[in-house]
Amino acid sequence: MKVGILGGGQLGRMLLQAAANYTVETYVMENEDDCPAAHLCHHFIKGDIKDFDAVYNFGKKLDALTIEIESVNVEALEQLEKEGVKIYPKPSAIRIIKNKIIQKEFYGKHDIPSSEFVVTNTIAELNEYHHFLPAVHKIGEGGYDGKGVQIIKEKSDAVKGFDAPAVLEKMVNIKKEIAIIIGMNDKGEAAVYPPAEMIFDPVLNLLDYQLSPARLSEKVWWKAEAIALKVVKQLNSAGLFAIELFVTDNDDVLINETAPRVHNSGHHTIEANYSSQFDMLWRIILNYPLGNTKPILPSAIVNIVGAEGYSGRAKYEGLEETLQIDNAFVHLYGKQQTKPGRKMGHVTIISSDYQDLTHKAHKIKNLLKVVSEA
Amino acid sequence: MKVGILGGGQLGRMLLQAAANYTVETYVMENEDDCPAAHLCHHFIKGDIKDFDAVYNFGKKLDALTIEIESVNVEALEQLEKEGVKIYPKPSAIRIIKNKIIQKEFYGKHDIPSSEFVVTNTIAELNEYHHFLPAVHKIGEGGYDGKGVQIIKEKSDAVKGFDAPAVLEKMVNIKKEIAIIIGMNDKGEAAVYPPAEMIFDPVLNLLDYQLSPARLSEKVWWKAEAIALKVVKQLNSAGLFAIELFVTDNDDVLINETAPRVHNSGHHTIEANYSSQFDMLWRIILNYPLGNTKPILPSAIVNIVGAEGYSGRAKYEGLEETLQIDNAFVHLYGKQQTKPGRKMGHVTIISSDYQDLTHKAHKIKNLLKVVSEA
Repeated sequence: MKVGILGGGQLGRMLLQAAANYTVETYVMENEDDCPAAHLCHHFIKGDIKDFDAVYNFGKKLDALTIEIESVNVEALEQLEKEGVKIYPKPSAIRIIKNKIIQKEFYGKHDIPSSEFVVTNTIAELNEYHHFLPAVHKIGEGGYDGKGVQIIKEKSDAVKGFDAPAVLEKMVNIKKEIAIIIGMNDKGEAAVYPPAEMIFDPVLNLLDYQLSPARLSEKVWWKAEAIALKVVKQLNSAGLFAIELFVTDNDDVLINETAPRVHNSGHHTIEANYSSQFDMLWRIILNYPLGNTKPILPSAIVNIVGAEGYSGRAKYEGLEETLQIDNAFVHLYGKQQTKPGRKMGHVTIISSDYQDLTHKAHKIKNLLKVVSEA
Repeated sequence: MKVGILGGGQLGRMLLQAAANYTVETYVMENEDDCPAAHLCHHFIKGDIKDFDAVYNFGKKLDALTIEIESVNVEALEQLEKEGVKIYPKPSAIRIIKNKIIQKEFYGKHDIPSSEFVVTNTIAELNEYHHFLPAVHKIGEGGYDGKGVQIIKEKSDAVKGFDAPAVLEKMVNIKKEIAIIIGMNDKGEAAVYPPAEMIFDPVLNLLDYQLSPARLSEKVWWKAEAIALKVVKQLNSAGLFAIELFVTDNDDVLINETAPRVHNSGHHTIEANYSSQFDMLWRIILNYPLGNTKPILPSAIVNIVGAEGYSGRAKYEGLEETLQIDNAFVHLYGKQQTKPGRKMGHVTIISSDYQDLTHKAHKIKNLLKVVSEA
């Protein structure tokens, strides 16, 4: 079977590591030919995943296609789908998700609980919603990795907003942020991973690390699972999905966002679960039975991102000490250049003891730094 | 760092899957350009690993080299070593191991217990040793995967022997066959994996499956570990080694053979141990700290080999049912052609319950078959 991946970043890289357990013939398209996934596929094609002709020509000889980023040319995928190429997820699902306005409206339409929102098209319009603040302003299309999102606490923050179609989401009091990975196959059968919870640095308000399974009351757990499953069922598409959810102060569960692809919040599944999110997607594409989502052991993920103030050829400080930690698994994405905030790798820790997970996560967070060569 | 692998089979494939957790630039040389590892490296070079010029030219631009098979051109590796390329294992260790006569003499020289043996150069010489039977006749060089080995039970079997330099090893009463994987770094520090034990089919006398950690008395365990460690220390080389041992009826431990590379008996370490044998070798080559050899859970390996009577394009019967087993991990090596006995993949099962391991191993053994397309 010939399967293509649009995008050649770390998600593609890990997908290809998992693909080598099976007999699939792999294709990758990406503009940069030294991208993290370029050397791990059978066929690398340099090309722009946003360009109709590039995507169409890449896909037309393949049996199936998947994505590792939403910002792809959906029209080309729709054409390919018509011509019989299987697309995971379906272009219709990508269309809903890649535009944050349509995504929000989709949740409303299907009674999937999410925060209140309004649509704005200009800063002038945004200025009219000061009674709606504090809120989060998200650009409709083109946002990625924290870009395209602004917190608008008060009227004067509106200048930071987007002078383009966007959603303004009312802030809710959040007790926890969680994520659930779900795989769905062509028969509509779903495999649901246990929720993971994000631990934020209370001072910097940045994601510190992630724990899985999340520590939740049974009631919240079931609510979260039901909502996540409803999202995937309503998207009506086979594929692998990450559903990010908020647990509010009064134990309501709201959907935050959905990603129609393998996701950072599922990286622990490589070592901590029987079937990883990457393995699961291959099982779905290759029409194999769904995998086992159960954890082998609880786990934490620490993301390795480029340190502030350093740009250039990447150098890893504290790597040796991290590699000495008995129950830690280091993943470096092979990116030669670092810049502040760039995702350069992650470390997964597995342990039956949550205290050990927390302790090691903090340790690695303090130990491991990506700087640049002098 | 630029690292080359001589040979592009399944061992290379799994090495490259593990390499993608780090930032190493990978090179593979192999004669067949659709071999299992060809598409997973940065640079594939088609060439004969037994040819001096091919190996020398491949290696001279690299920082380090490793092997996935012993039958390589050792002279070229010696020349490269002189010129400063790091070789894992050292050519001197490969030289000792690749010739079964020299290997046997090496054990004797270092007081490493092994079965009694004599060297024969012709069938005529073999005929003189009928008082030494039953014994195993092993060709000095060129044997691989069971080829180059004959059991000589009685005088009349001598015709099956080798008319070439070979060792004749006296048969011992074996209670168990075990294997120990050891990684050694440039500083001489060693990481020792728990022994694995081979379970043979009592009727066919073929390897049925493998269990790890082996069920051994503490005394035998320590003896086996001490012998395995002594072998690696005396080989005096960094690298990854598999030491195959016999446990006799009276609990003596004898060395059978050593492989100076990642090995089939260590495949379970991918899922069942914190650092896999493949990860360990990269840590050694990249000068990282040694990994953790502890098991996460006990495990079994079932090898998937080409069924008797089938040659041609591979087809996997029972794959779907195998993929449904909750705690099984399927690895297919991506070989397009099957033939009787060809290693096509393996399945690892992990469980805290040895009964479960045994049960699932039998199940998979009966379920999964590699046949050829009609």
